[in-house]
Amino acid sequence: MNCEIITIGDELLIGQVIDTNSAWMAKELNPMGISVRQITSVSDKPEHIISALELAAKSSSVVIMTGGLGPTKDDLTKNTLSKYFESELKFDEGVYEDVKTLFAERGFEVTETNRLQAMVPEQCIVLRNKRGTAPGMWFKKNNVIFISLPGVPYEMKYLMEHEVMPRLQEQFKLPPVTHKTLLTQGIGESTLSDKIALWENALPEEIKLAYLPSPGMVRLRLSLKGGNDNSLLLLQQESDKLKALIASNYFGEDEDTLEGVVGKLLLERKEMMATAESCTGGHLAAKITKTPGASSYFKGSVIAYSNQVKKGLLNVAENTINTFGAVSEQTVTEMAENLLQLMEVDASIATSGIAGPDGGSAEKPVGLVWIAAAYKDKIITKKFLLGSNRARTIEVSAQHGLFMLRKLMLENHA
Amino acid sequence: MNCEIITIGDELLIGQVIDTNSAWMAKELNPMGISVRQITSVSDKPEHIISALELAAKSSSVVIMTGGLGPTKDDLTKNTLSKYFESELKFDEGVYEDVKTLFAERGFEVTETNRLQAMVPEQCIVLRNKRGTAPGMWFKKNNVIFISLPGVPYEMKYLMEHEVMPRLQEQFKLPPVTHKTLLTQGIGESTLSDKIALWENALPEEIKLAYLPSPGMVRLRLSLKGGNDNSLLLLQQESDKLKALIASNYFGEDEDTLEGVVGKLLLERKEMMATAESCTGGHLAAKITKTPGASSYFKGSVIAYSNQVKKGLLNVAENTINTFGAVSEQTVTEMAENLLQLMEVDASIATSGIAGPDGGSAEKPVGLVWIAAAYKDKIITKKFLLGSNRARTIEVSAQHGLFMLRKLMLENHA
Repeated sequence: MNCEIITIGDELLIGQVIDTNSAWMAKELNPMGISVRQITSVSDKPEHIISALELAAKSSSVVIMTGGLGPTKDDLTKNTLSKYFESELKFDEGVYEDVKTLFAERGFEVTETNRLQAMVPEQCIVLRNKRGTAPGMWFKKNNVIFISLPGVPYEMKYLMEHEVMPRLQEQFKLPPVTHKTLLTQGIGESTLSDKIALWENALPEEIKLAYLPSPGMVRLRLSLKGGNDNSLLLLQQESDKLKALIASNYFGEDEDTLEGVVGKLLLERKEMMATAESCTGGHLAAKITKTPGASSYFKGSVIAYSNQVKKGLLNVAENTINTFGAVSEQTVTEMAENLLQLMEVDASIATSGIAGPDGGSAEKPVGLVWIAAAYKDKIITKKFLLGSNRARTIEVSAQHGLFMLRKLMLENHA
Repeated sequence: MNCEIITIGDELLIGQVIDTNSAWMAKELNPMGISVRQITSVSDKPEHIISALELAAKSSSVVIMTGGLGPTKDDLTKNTLSKYFESELKFDEGVYEDVKTLFAERGFEVTETNRLQAMVPEQCIVLRNKRGTAPGMWFKKNNVIFISLPGVPYEMKYLMEHEVMPRLQEQFKLPPVTHKTLLTQGIGESTLSDKIALWENALPEEIKLAYLPSPGMVRLRLSLKGGNDNSLLLLQQESDKLKALIASNYFGEDEDTLEGVVGKLLLERKEMMATAESCTGGHLAAKITKTPGASSYFKGSVIAYSNQVKKGLLNVAENTINTFGAVSEQTVTEMAENLLQLMEVDASIATSGIAGPDGGSAEKPVGLVWIAAAYKDKIITKKFLLGSNRARTIEVSAQHGLFMLRKLMLENHA
């Protein structure tokens, strides 16, 4: 079953507003068994809106429009829709009540412009909006359902959740789609694809695989349409097989994050961590503290961008830096180990590298990073070559550190 | 002159990825005199891609595609394009060089899958991608230009800036557009708009003003189309007038960043800074160290997420924390002052607040943040109420700290 989304508004076409509505709607519709076939952003021009509606109706049974409504421009859109659905505008008392209630709550008088928002096409089912002044509208023409919603995200979401989705559920009774996403770190899309090729080629037809790469990570998403108990079991089995194949790079599922899974481990064990960062410059700490409640397992960090701080605050031996350099296995080892005592924590991550674009040498090129993860009396260190993109090197270094710590913690569980 | 954007990828249609590429492109193309007529997101299916291309070519002279390229899926897209443009795939040595260079930097071997990325349709002009393995492609058919770009935003942006936009400018002999952007921090869009209304209404017709808001900041972009010497002078004059009106929130121009302007001041004065962060959790240090060369003026940071670290490492008096609390003027003052000695720096910023969503009280609500900026023997502190959005509070706190330090440094110049 297909749906098309049409987002209306000049502000989308000049790049002033990013369309986040469509992705939200698609994410909600998909598990219901409604596939979004196409998303189209068009201008406020009536002829453009109409041609988009006509095209969409050719290949989809549901067309959802957002935007083009609101006190300053809904006349135009509503007139366009009235014309397209061969309907007259009429005054709707219920909608007017909603508008008045909303204004009363905010202590405003209803203006004439807002009163006109209660004018709706006769032919539509009105979807009453408790979050704003523009109602939603539900039309049917030649067996296609057309839904018009305001573009303000929290009004659109309210109407989707309370009016649109329940009605769609009732109208069509469709098999759901189930997703299972496995998350990997530290392996490129192409290497991963080579590694799982045999399994991927043997996937049952009803399960689809998608690669979703971002710097340093690839998410592998399995989608199953039409889930009965048997096929759900199949999805679980294929997901388990895949997990075994990618075990050395796997760290979580679905909405997990690397910092989240490490945080969860620490919370479970009632332990605390800290970071000692040179090349990541605070990015690792910032990543960890982005999660609400991080203060329950994260004590803090020393960002040792200068060697003076490495020596003065982190007590790295002068001799270590002089002999091996700041970017070395020895230095990150001391940083991670000393931090355990300094912050009185159970776990730590230390980074030191040349993020670039300058500062490299033949022996220590830009992109060289040493990382240490320490957990109680265990420590692991690893060397990485991450290329010349500074932002990418910083992000990927932070990921590697978290991934290493997770591994070390899992291997050392009482 | 019209352009259509087609974004390709199933991930867009299930809502896993929000299309931010189109808005970015529209924002860049508009001032060049290229209007985006429609944005269409389609699936990875060849027939869907082709029908979208055919439709777009009916009403636009330029069609830009993003996505559908990358080691695991570009075969499909490239084969589709080859077919549509009646072209064969051939191996491109130049592209292969780019792929090899990129892999060598990261210390990886080129896999067979990646070698295949060097296969490109014979008929296209290859747009070489220095940021990734998938090249851009430029086709012409029936007087319409078709451009295919990878979907990874920073690769797409690189190709737009270095390959696509200059070629479009040349091809269509577009009048040059000159921009001048003034950057403000700490003032909302509507307050700003009220403040500059008189000036804005009197702007000469050839100069357009755009408000480009992001959390905590508003960029004001003046655009002038078809600039001769006279109109360039006019642009400078209007920009100067605007700058005077917004002086108390102004911090830079065009590509400047807050951390960049503070870094430049420090570099000029051959001085160093450091940060002591509680609620910003390393985000401030990460922001500063994102800039290449930051090690010349940034020594490091202490992320004191726990009070133990505030006392132990930053020497905040036990009594201060017990009497006034960790989130207080007294605590951030000690953090900022003590850091000057601890790190032996000239300048420092300290933050302490309740980022939320939990942890607030009637007296100290979520969003309350105290910030101190110290420079030599001067210190300023300020209290902010930043609301309940954690990520926003962290980002805006970091900005306020940098803005305060910049102001203090400018007021105290020998």
